[in-house]
Amino acid sequence: MLNPGERVEIGPSGRKIIYDADGKPCRSCNEFNDFQFVTGKVKNAAAGVTTRLATVSSDDLIPGSRTYTKVPPPDVNQLGRSSWTMLHAMAAKYPKDTPTNTQKEEMTNFLKIFSHVYPCTWCAKDFEKYIRENAPKVDNREQLGRWMCEAHNHVNKKLGKPKFNCNFWEKRWVTGWDDE
Amino acid sequence: MLNPGERVEIGPSGRKIIYDADGKPCRSCNEFNDFQFVTGKVKNAAAGVTTRLATVSSDDLIPGSRTYTKVPPPDVNQLGRSSWTMLHAMAAKYPKDTPTNTQKEEMTNFLKIFSHVYPCTWCAKDFEKYIRENAPKVDNREQLGRWMCEAHNHVNKKLGKPKFNCNFWEKRWVTGWDDE
Repeated sequence: MLNPGERVEIGPSGRKIIYDADGKPCRSCNEFNDFQFVTGKVKNAAAGVTTRLATVSSDDLIPGSRTYTKVPPPDVNQLGRSSWTMLHAMAAKYPKDTPTNTQKEEMTNFLKIFSHVYPCTWCAKDFEKYIRENAPKVDNREQLGRWMCEAHNHVNKKLGKPKFNCNFWEKRWVTGWDDE
Repeated sequence: MLNPGERVEIGPSGRKIIYDADGKPCRSCNEFNDFQFVTGKVKNAAAGVTTRLATVSSDDLIPGSRTYTKVPPPDVNQLGRSSWTMLHAMAAKYPKDTPTNTQKEEMTNFLKIFSHVYPCTWCAKDFEKYIRENAPKVDNREQLGRWMCEAHNHVNKKLGKPKFNCNFWEKRWVTGWDDE
């Protein structure tokens, strides 16, 4: 149990707890279980992991809905997976050879603004720095797809995850693996 | 089986097949199974749905990797889920009361560019039209969160899905449901 005023530094996952500027723990910057722990919703690591409901009771449904259940806001991992899916798919659909100047400017701008509005604040700041030091390459699809793959690997490295071999970026995000 | 030159109009899912400007079926605009069918990878609806691998053999791994498997590019549904997660979470983290003019401009711009670069082209065009007719409300978090919820409901309606009650947008995307 936490004492009043006590501030948790490390969560049950072993990761540092991230707080917002107002002193409250940041939902989109921490793992769900760490967030639940630090807000006093669960007392240990094991209790918090049951986020999927095996059976749906009426208590699990949003009042007035027969479909929507009380799903918690995304944690840092779900947000990361979702956002990379969107970003890689966007690169996969970028003009193959000759984007217009408008398309180049919009893509550059999009990534810049993304680094300001991304909900995980520490991830956003890291991405902003990465963009400043490694300007997005927007001359064609191959360039942008590789740039995105390398940006993702930069994050993988920070998180201790294995690198993805960027020679396969196109198979992973554009063509699929069926023709091997 | 399809004959050479034959163009499929409706996929096994019952949805219209979407083609890119170059005449090829659009991966990010169709369901995975429909895409596999129309590209001749599977011959019927049932065969194509096995996209999750129960056990991982070395054939399933990307060459040289012990971690990354040959996951296909996202289909229209996975892309939709991922992108809405990112967009709602972004609204949830928008300044609560007094965003700066720069923050307002960036958010408006982000959504506009999003409607140009979103990989599902017909979805993108629909979103672009929606934004033109329903300008994003960016004066504070509550406004933006509700605007996003209504934009999502516009798409839910098009797809025949139930509406989400936007009075619950904050619980779903900001606070969670624990304090009820």
